Amino acid sequence: MYSSVKKYLEDHQAQSLEDLKQFLRFESISADSKCREQMKQTAEFVRNRLESAGLKAEIHPTAGHPIVTGQWRKAKDAPTVLIYGHYDVQPPDPLELWTSPPFEPEVREGKIYARGATDDKGQMLTHLLAIEAWLKTAGKLPVNVIFVIEGEEEVGSNNLDLFLAEKKEEYACDVAVVSDTSMYAPDLPAITYGLRGILACEVTLTGPNRDLHSGVFGGAVANPINVLTKMLGSLQDDQGKILIPGFYDDVLELGEDEKKEFSSLPFDEAAFMKDLGINTLQGEAGYSTIERRWARPTFDINGIYGGYSGEGPKTIIPSTATAKITCRLVPNQNAAQLTSAIKSHLESICPTSVTMEFTDFHGCEGIVFDTSGPYFQAASRAIQNAFGTRPVFIREGGSIPVVATFQEIFGVETLLLGWGLNSDNLHSPNEHFHLENFYRGTLASASLWEELVS
Amino acid sequence: MYSSVKKYLEDHQAQSLEDLKQFLRFESISADSKCREQMKQTAEFVRNRLESAGLKAEIHPTAGHPIVTGQWRKAKDAPTVLIYGHYDVQPPDPLELWTSPPFEPEVREGKIYARGATDDKGQMLTHLLAIEAWLKTAGKLPVNVIFVIEGEEEVGSNNLDLFLAEKKEEYACDVAVVSDTSMYAPDLPAITYGLRGILACEVTLTGPNRDLHSGVFGGAVANPINVLTKMLGSLQDDQGKILIPGFYDDVLELGEDEKKEFSSLPFDEAAFMKDLGINTLQGEAGYSTIERRWARPTFDINGIYGGYSGEGPKTIIPSTATAKITCRLVPNQNAAQLTSAIKSHLESICPTSVTMEFTDFHGCEGIVFDTSGPYFQAASRAIQNAFGTRPVFIREGGSIPVVATFQEIFGVETLLLGWGLNSDNLHSPNEHFHLENFYRGTLASASLWEELVS
Repeated sequence: MYSSVKKYLEDHQAQSLEDLKQFLRFESISADSKCREQMKQTAEFVRNRLESAGLKAEIHPTAGHPIVTGQWRKAKDAPTVLIYGHYDVQPPDPLELWTSPPFEPEVREGKIYARGATDDKGQMLTHLLAIEAWLKTAGKLPVNVIFVIEGEEEVGSNNLDLFLAEKKEEYACDVAVVSDTSMYAPDLPAITYGLRGILACEVTLTGPNRDLHSGVFGGAVANPINVLTKMLGSLQDDQGKILIPGFYDDVLELGEDEKKEFSSLPFDEAAFMKDLGINTLQGEAGYSTIERRWARPTFDINGIYGGYSGEGPKTIIPSTATAKITCRLVPNQNAAQLTSAIKSHLESICPTSVTMEFTDFHGCEGIVFDTSGPYFQAASRAIQNAFGTRPVFIREGGSIPVVATFQEIFGVETLLLGWGLNSDNLHSPNEHFHLENFYRGTLASASLWEELVS
Repeated sequence: MYSSVKKYLEDHQAQSLEDLKQFLRFESISADSKCREQMKQTAEFVRNRLESAGLKAEIHPTAGHPIVTGQWRKAKDAPTVLIYGHYDVQPPDPLELWTSPPFEPEVREGKIYARGATDDKGQMLTHLLAIEAWLKTAGKLPVNVIFVIEGEEEVGSNNLDLFLAEKKEEYACDVAVVSDTSMYAPDLPAITYGLRGILACEVTLTGPNRDLHSGVFGGAVANPINVLTKMLGSLQDDQGKILIPGFYDDVLELGEDEKKEFSSLPFDEAAFMKDLGINTLQGEAGYSTIERRWARPTFDINGIYGGYSGEGPKTIIPSTATAKITCRLVPNQNAAQLTSAIKSHLESICPTSVTMEFTDFHGCEGIVFDTSGPYFQAASRAIQNAFGTRPVFIREGGSIPVVATFQEIFGVETLLLGWGLNSDNLHSPNEHFHLENFYRGTLASASLWEELVS
């Protein structure tokens, strides 16, 4: 059937582009309370579009922005696929850096420019269009599908977990599909099978009850910034190895096969450094740059502040100093347990001359899937069918909490099939999506439903 | 002659208070450009008041606020005393915390409340009134005097050094007198014979040319905050000993006599901690709290910033991190030399993965005078005559750059004779000056001119 579905999609490319443009015109900025009405209208657009594609669609109000679902469940004895996406977008500021207005989609040199073009309206739409093509041509799908399209991904997905937990039985599924990641490089499609987890916390040290004159008190009273730098500075060695007791205990080490695959990926270290404006890469000894980014845990201080930050000097001993910390975690590390380990260790090295306050911002676990399983192999074939190139299996250094949620609630793997490129300016001005990848992604999706059962 | 001068001052107490009130009504806030006209009027008031006291007075324009001088140079073969003070005051904010308006002086319970009451209008006026009393009663002074009253002390005295350097020969003198410090405690007058010096600098580390996603890049790229905390954290041991090579080489150690004198001073450590809201004092091992504050060098990070400082977490690797540092120095340490030592050491421990920028804000040397000399002994007798109590000789942990200037330009010691109290709220709302100390300070000044030649 794929060939006739493919023909349908090729014949309807112009219509697909119009659909995408219409979707992109909604100012669905979840972070902006002025967009509440636009958010509702966007959810209605998604619901209507799912319906016109042939699915049973519904809008579910939440404490925040609504969640839209669409189902087609008539493939007896076939697997059920949960397709996740989000219709909300990042704020478009700074507006003056956009060549064309962020909510007036414009095609230039084969790319469509608009906020949300790649993240995630364009990518999620590929699945809707592919399923529509199946239903319009074959009148049915090889698998059952459940779309879950949320409106709060860019603001923390606060209501999604609750919603999915409620639907645990109704939405029982065999695999999840998400297109919200990237290809490895132009013309090199990728399936992401591993993600790092994350933990986030904040530590504040308080010394004297007010900023003190450094002449009158200096030398006799603990300075919270001095103490904080001493504490934090002791947590890593010169090679970036994290010295918190037990930190690496549960790390799932990379296998030789994965190491070999990573090292076979094209990676231009000189260009990477040039882009960042640095002349040395720094990281844990014994690992390559890709390994450090995808498969090793980190300890990063994301922000630090205390005392005076204006021009010139100011002779004070500050009352407080604060650091914000995130650790990227790798599979098998437990976020809550490591957060406790960090807290305990900091407490153990914190002198009595200051008081320490620790805030746990919670996190999520890292994920790694077995790519030799049937779903991953099906996705690989589908992408090869559409792109003409076998995709590479990659990990990513970031965290996609919803993947952990799907594993936890439904016990399923997630196929992260990215049609975007890292250079598509997601979260930045002039966000865009290559139309070629939009069309190829749609074909890959169309092929996937068949491959999943072949 | 002192007894008749004293009687004159006692008879004219009401007039002295009126003089002080009039002086305090000027809004001479040097930091506030809206006060430029008031600053001029204050300088004119000082000039006129010096003239009516019987001195030859002059206003000297500078690139900033004018300097006022007043001279009486008719004491042949007698020493010449340079009396320094400042007519500018700190801004009075926050205004709502003042019980009475900051520029409407009001006497309550024996204290006069106004901005500048103790810092420094009230204290400097004591010398003017004492000299006036001498000239009105004896028709002459036992010494020659040169008043130098600047209007930029609260904003860094930017034009004073230049002015004094120009007057190096004209203002050649034997000793300087400054009343801009504090008594050791109520009813325990003090002469400050030692001050710490200071150096101030700033260090900024730059890693990537922009904030990076900590998931995509974390582990492979140096995080400037991580690096900065590691560098700074290595500069002191757990006891607060500074580990910069050579830092203590030139330190003039305290003699046993001074240690004994310090330990004999009343000092309530429990009350000191309670006031600061801390339960442990922390400082260099082997030294008392007073020794640490007055006679040991320090390394304080006065401010640190980099990355995210808003609510919650943010998953970035920041591009830069900055720390502001001041060290209090003790006599014999050289500010410029130690600033270089800090810079060199930081450079030597800075990894190649970040670039370091270092800014030297300059500083001044510490000072310690020999209290057994004739001028210090004369000041001690004068204070005993006026207060009925022998003053204690103390050091202070802060820095008064003008004292180093007087030593450098005129080669003279400075008698720091404080009539204020640390609790007088200088630089805070409800600044005040005990009238009893105002009157006793005036008498001590009157006695000093005679004691200096006896």
